[in-house]
Amino acid sequence: MTRRLALHPDRLLPADPATRALARELYANVAGMPIVSPHGHTDPAWFAGNANFGNAAQLLLEPDHYVFRMLYSQGVPLDALGVGGSAADPRQAWRLFAERYHLFRGTPSRMWHDWVFAEAFGMKVRLDAETSDLYFDTITEQLGADAFRPRALFERFNIEVIATTESPLDSLEHHEAIRASGWNGKVITAYRPDPVVDPEYADPNGGFRGNIDRLSELTGEDCTTWSGYLAAHRQRRAVFAAMGATSTDHGHPTALTANLSRGECERLFQTVISGTFTEFDAELFRAQMLTEMAAMSIDDGLVMQIHPGALRNHNAGLFQSFGRDVGADIPTRTDYVHALKPLLDCFGNHPGLSIIVFTLDESAYARELAPLAGHYPCLKLGPAWWFHDSPEGMRRFRRATTETAGFYNTVGFNDDTRAFLSIPARHDVARRIDCGFFAELVMEHRIEDWEAAELARDLAYNFVKQAYKL
Amino acid sequence: MTRRLALHPDRLLPADPATRALARELYANVAGMPIVSPHGHTDPAWFAGNANFGNAAQLLLEPDHYVFRMLYSQGVPLDALGVGGSAADPRQAWRLFAERYHLFRGTPSRMWHDWVFAEAFGMKVRLDAETSDLYFDTITEQLGADAFRPRALFERFNIEVIATTESPLDSLEHHEAIRASGWNGKVITAYRPDPVVDPEYADPNGGFRGNIDRLSELTGEDCTTWSGYLAAHRQRRAVFAAMGATSTDHGHPTALTANLSRGECERLFQTVISGTFTEFDAELFRAQMLTEMAAMSIDDGLVMQIHPGALRNHNAGLFQSFGRDVGADIPTRTDYVHALKPLLDCFGNHPGLSIIVFTLDESAYARELAPLAGHYPCLKLGPAWWFHDSPEGMRRFRRATTETAGFYNTVGFNDDTRAFLSIPARHDVARRIDCGFFAELVMEHRIEDWEAAELARDLAYNFVKQAYKL
Amino acid sequence: MTRRLALHPDRLLPADPATRALARELYANVAGMPIVSPHGHTDPAWFAGNANFGNAAQLLLEPDHYVFRMLYSQGVPLDALGVGGSAADPRQAWRLFAERYHLFRGTPSRMWHDWVFAEAFGMKVRLDAETSDLYFDTITEQLGADAFRPRALFERFNIEVIATTESPLDSLEHHEAIRASGWNGKVITAYRPDPVVDPEYADPNGGFRGNIDRLSELTGEDCTTWSGYLAAHRQRRAVFAAMGATSTDHGHPTALTANLSRGECERLFQTVISGTFTEFDAELFRAQMLTEMAAMSIDDGLVMQIHPGALRNHNAGLFQSFGRDVGADIPTRTDYVHALKPLLDCFGNHPGLSIIVFTLDESAYARELAPLAGHYPCLKLGPAWWFHDSPEGMRRFRRATTETAGFYNTVGFNDDTRAFLSIPARHDVARRIDCGFFAELVMEHRIEDWEAAELARDLAYNFVKQAYKL
Repeated sequence: MTRRLALHPDRLLPADPATRALARELYANVAGMPIVSPHGHTDPAWFAGNANFGNAAQLLLEPDHYVFRMLYSQGVPLDALGVGGSAADPRQAWRLFAERYHLFRGTPSRMWHDWVFAEAFGMKVRLDAETSDLYFDTITEQLGADAFRPRALFERFNIEVIATTESPLDSLEHHEAIRASGWNGKVITAYRPDPVVDPEYADPNGGFRGNIDRLSELTGEDCTTWSGYLAAHRQRRAVFAAMGATSTDHGHPTALTANLSRGECERLFQTVISGTFTEFDAELFRAQMLTEMAAMSIDDGLVMQIHPGALRNHNAGLFQSFGRDVGADIPTRTDYVHALKPLLDCFGNHPGLSIIVFTLDESAYARELAPLAGHYPCLKLGPAWWFHDSPEGMRRFRRATTETAGFYNTVGFNDDTRAFLSIPARHDVARRIDCGFFAELVMEHRIEDWEAAELARDLAYNFVKQAYKL
Repeated sequence: MTRRLALHPDRLLPADPATRALARELYANVAGMPIVSPHGHTDPAWFAGNANFGNAAQLLLEPDHYVFRMLYSQGVPLDALGVGGSAADPRQAWRLFAERYHLFRGTPSRMWHDWVFAEAFGMKVRLDAETSDLYFDTITEQLGADAFRPRALFERFNIEVIATTESPLDSLEHHEAIRASGWNGKVITAYRPDPVVDPEYADPNGGFRGNIDRLSELTGEDCTTWSGYLAAHRQRRAVFAAMGATSTDHGHPTALTANLSRGECERLFQTVISGTFTEFDAELFRAQMLTEMAAMSIDDGLVMQIHPGALRNHNAGLFQSFGRDVGADIPTRTDYVHALKPLLDCFGNHPGLSIIVFTLDESAYARELAPLAGHYPCLKLGPAWWFHDSPEGMRRFRRATTETAGFYNTVGFNDDTRAFLSIPARHDVARRIDCGFFAELVMEHRIEDWEAAELARDLAYNFVKQAYKL
Repeated sequence: MTRRLALHPDRLLPADPATRALARELYANVAGMPIVSPHGHTDPAWFAGNANFGNAAQLLLEPDHYVFRMLYSQGVPLDALGVGGSAADPRQAWRLFAERYHLFRGTPSRMWHDWVFAEAFGMKVRLDAETSDLYFDTITEQLGADAFRPRALFERFNIEVIATTESPLDSLEHHEAIRASGWNGKVITAYRPDPVVDPEYADPNGGFRGNIDRLSELTGEDCTTWSGYLAAHRQRRAVFAAMGATSTDHGHPTALTANLSRGECERLFQTVISGTFTEFDAELFRAQMLTEMAAMSIDDGLVMQIHPGALRNHNAGLFQSFGRDVGADIPTRTDYVHALKPLLDCFGNHPGLSIIVFTLDESAYARELAPLAGHYPCLKLGPAWWFHDSPEGMRRFRRATTETAGFYNTVGFNDDTRAFLSIPARHDVARRIDCGFFAELVMEHRIEDWEAAELARDLAYNFVKQAYKL
C-alpha cells in the first residue's frame, strides 16, 4: 500500500496551540525571504556549465554522506550505492535506499528528502520499496528538463547568493566562467586552505607536501620558505576575494591557536615541510596558521570561519577503499577557552577582525562559546553545525547560547551542504525552528511579539549578510 | 493524615492535550507487550529455588543502591539500613526509609516504588512515617504467599525472557537447576568477565590474581599463560552460551581498546598477573581484552556490551567498611572516538560483530555515540543507562541520538536491575517516555502516526530481540 | 515610537494552559516570601553608610559585568561606559546602553533590568534610544530620595538576610558599623580567602605574596610558616564568624583537592611563598588548601562553598588596561569526580562537614555532581550559577540533577550579585522557574500537587536557611 506524501504547513512548529499560532505568524513573514547561503559545498562547475544533473541516485544518494552513512550502518555496502566512484547500477542503488527509507525516521535527512521529493519533484506518494522505481523514473526524467538545470533551480529556489568552498590550489576557473557567462546568479568562492595548511592532510591522491609544491607553481612564490609560503597565501586570498570570496574556512581537528616568534615559525615550517614531523608539530603548525590567517584577515577583511573538532576518516578500512568523505568523520570533545587564547591575545580586541566559530561539541555552547562570543568583539557563533543542523540540534543551540551571547552575536543559518536540491529545505527548517523558539519566548513574556518579528527577519536574512559581508 | 496512592493512567505522558491523546493511544498498543529483559542483575538462585522472598526491607531496601545512596546522602548510616550484611532490624530500617520517602520526589526510584506498592502489593495509601508499619506488614505478609514466589511473579509480570549476569568463575549451577526443573520461564545468563579481566578489580574478598587461579582450576587451562588464558575465556563463553547466553558485558572504567601484537600481549599479560603493574598496564590490558573479546564474539556470535565510565568505589571509607556496590560508583567523562578506534580498526566493518555501547556521560550522546553508531555496522547504542534510566534521562537520550543515529541503531530498553519487583515499572516508564516522544514527533509532523505506532512496538519489543538475538 | 513597559504576571511560567494554571497557583504561594541571600557581592559599606546611590549609570551599568561584556562584544569600548574607573560621562554611557538594549533580548539581564525599571523605578515605557534621557533622569532623581537609600531598599525588598563576601584581609569595619548602628537589617559576611590562598592571584594592585604579609600584620601570626599561616586562617575565620559569617567561599580555577602530609605541605608552602613556583605548585597548593579549609569547617561549622571552573581574566589586553572583573572570566571544562576525591577520602563521611558545590560546566550536572551529592552526606549542589542563572539554565539544572540527587540535596537560590537592585528580580525568576518545573512534574503525575506546594516553599525559603545555617 502506497502512502500519501504531503508536507504539513505547520511542520516543526511547537505543539502548544497558542504557541503554534504565534510561530505560524512569525514564520509566514520570513518563509519567502531570499536564501543567503554563505557557507557550503555545492560545485561551481554546476553553475558554470549549467548541464543537467544525472539520475536520481547520482544526484540525491551518491554524494550525500548523511544518507549513505546511515545505510552503511545498517549493513549496506558502500559500493552497492555507487559511493566513491564504484560502479553500482543507479536504479538498484536507489532501491537499496528506498527499501530502507524508514531508517531515516526522526532524522533531518528524512525532512530534507521529503521536501525535495514533494516540492522539487512533485511526488505525491511516500518513498518505499514499492514506489522506488516510480521515484527513480520520475526524478530522473525531470532532471533532464531545462527547469532542473542548476541555474534554473538556483533562481527557482530564490537564492540571493551562494558561497562554494575551494582549496587555494583550485584554479577558480568555474567561478571565472560563471562571471564571464553573463548569468547574474551570485555564486562566490571561499578560501579553504586546509590542504596546504594541515601537514597531516590525508588524501589517497597526494598530501601536504605535494600541495605545497603545487602552491609554489600556482603562485610563483617559493613556498618552501616561510615568507614565500605566507606570501602565496596572501596572493591566493586576493585572487579568491576577486572571485567574490568574503570568508575563509578552517577545518582543523582542534581549535588550537598559537603565537610563535618568527624564528620559531620558520623552524616549525621547515620541520613540517621536511616530511618528518611529529603529531605535535603538525598540531602546532595548524595552530600557528590560524593566527597567521587572522592577521591576514585584518589586512584583507575576509571573515574567518573556524570549524574544529572532527576526527576525519575514522574508519581506517573504508578510507583505504573509498578515500575521504565517506561518512566516517566523527566529532570529538573540543576545548575553545584555552585553545583560542593565543590568537585572542594577539587580535581579540581588534575592530577589524571577525571570526565565526562552530562546534560539534555541544557541551561547549553554554560553557565556552557563548561566554567567549558574549565578550570578544571579534567572535561570533556559527549556527548549529553538521550533526546538529537538525530541529533538536538547533533548539539546543538557541537554548544554550542565547542567554549568554544573545541573538546578536550569532550569524543566521549555514546550510553547509553539497546537496543542492535540499538547500531550500534546510533554510526552511532553520526558519521554522527559530520562529518556534521566538514564539516560546513570547509566550513566556521574555520578549514582545514585535521583537520576535524583528528577530525572525534578522536570523533569516539580515545577520548572515552582515556577518559575512554579503 | 494518610494520603491516597493511585497511579494515574496518563503518568509520564506529555502535558499538551493533543500530544497526550496521541501518546495515550500509542502507549495503549504497547503497554501489554511481553517484557524482554536482556541485561540485568536478578539472582538466578531465585528462579532455581523459587523460595519466597523475605521481608519488605530485605527485598526492597537492602539491595537497592538507588535507595540507600539517597538515604545515606541525607545522613542515614548504611548499617542502620541492613546494607552489606549489617544486622539492622528490618522494621526499623524500613521506617528510616518510610520517614524519608519524600527525599525521592522527582526521582525514578519514587515512580518505581509507587508502582511496586500499588500494583504488586495493592497498597492504597502513600508510604510515609505513619504508614510505615502498615507497609512493612502488608508487604512482608504477601511475600510469604505462593503468588509472590519468584516464578509466579515472573509469569505475572509477563516476562518472556530475562538475562542475569555472571562472572566466568560462576558455576552456573542455578541456571542448570532452572533448566532441569522443567519450569518453562526463560532465564539466561550473560558473560561478565571483569573479575578475570580487570587487574585492578577491587574486592575485599580477593582480587584479580586469585580469580585467575580459580579460572585455571575451573577450566583446566593454564591461565598464567596468554594462550591458556584466552582458551579459558573461549571455554567459559561456550559454557555460558550453552546456558542461554547471547551476550557478554564489560564494565570498564573507560572505553579504551587496544590492538597489540601477540608478543606485546604476552608480555603485558605476564606483567599484570605478576601483581606488579602500573595503572597504565592495567588500563592497557583491559583495552586489549575488549579487542580480544570482540574477536571471540565474531567466532561465537555473542553480542558485546560495553558499559564504561564509572569510577567504582569512590568512597574509600565505605569501601573499607561495606565493600563494593554501596552506591558510591560515580560516572566520569568518557571518550569513545579515540578509545574505540583500535578495536574498530580491526573489526569495525565485520558483518559478524555486534557491539552495544552504553554511556554515563551524556555529552557523548550527540557528539560521539550517535555519529559512531550511525556509521559503523557493528555498533548500536544501548539505552539511557543507570542514572539516566529516568524520564528526563530517556528524553535526553532520544533527543540527542535520534537525529544522527536514527531509531534503528538503538536496541530498546534494558532494566539493568537487581530490584526484581520493579522490572515491570521500569519497562513501563520506558514505553511511556518513548510513546510521548513519538507523539511529539507526530505533532510536529516529523513522522506520521502509523510510523509512530510501528516504532513504538519496535522499541518496546522487536529491537531488543533482534539486537540481543533473543 | 515609545513602547509600553509592563511586566506580565505570568512571565516565565510554562505555555501549556493547564500547566500554567498550576504553576501560577504554586507561585502565588511563594512570591511574597522573604528573600534569603546567602551568597553575593553587595558592598557592606552601602548598608553601613546608608548613603544614596549615585546616578543611573553608576548604579546599573558600570558595575554590572553582564551588561558591559555584552556591549563590549558588540564594539562598545569599556571606557565609554565608565568601567574600571574610566571617566565617561554617565548620561552618554547610559545612552550607549539604551541604544543597544535590544542586544539583551533573550538574556536574563533583560528580565532583571525590566523588573528594576518597572518595579523599582516605576518606568512605564521601554528603554531605547528615545527614552534614554527619560530613564537616566527619572532613575537618577529617584536615587536621591530617602526611599532609595540602601537600608530602605533592603526593607522594601523584604530581605531577611544577605551575605556579602570579603577577603580575610578585609577589616570588616562596615559589618561592625552596621551592627553598631542599631539598624536591624541582617547583613553578614562570608570568608573568601582566594587572595591569600591562590599563589597566582592576579591583581594589578598587588598579589599573593604581599597579601600574605598583610595577613601576618593583621593577625600577628607569622604567615611565612605553614603553622602560622593556618593559625591566621583560623583566627580570621573566627572574626568572620563573629560578624555573622556562616560560610566560606572558594573560587578556584579547578575543583582539585589534595591530601598531602604535613611535611609535604610545609615544603609546598615555602615554595609558593618564595615566589618561584610552577603552575603545578600553585594548583597543588590551592588543592591542599581546600582540604585544610574543610578541616577547619569541621571545627568551626562554617559551610564551605566551592565555585570552580572559571579561567579569570581571559582577555590579556583588557586585564592590562582595566584589571580584574571586566567580563572576561570564561568557564572551562571541570572535573569533580577525581578532583574532590582526596578531600572526600579525608572527610566525605564526616557528619560535621557541609560543602556546597557549584559548576559552570553543565556537562557535570548529571554525570558527576548529582551522583556525588546523591551519595556523600557532606555534599550539596549549589544552584545554577552565573551564566546559568537564567530561565533555561535553571531548567537544565533541575532536569539534569533532580532525578539523581533529588531536591533535598540542593540548597535553594543564590543571587551571587553586586547588582543590588536586581536581587528581588533574580529571586523571582528562580521562584517562577521552579514553580513551572513543579507544575510540569504534577502534570505528568510524577509528584502530587501538595508535594509541589511543599517543595516550592522549601526551594524558595527553607532549604537555603538550613543549608547555610541561617
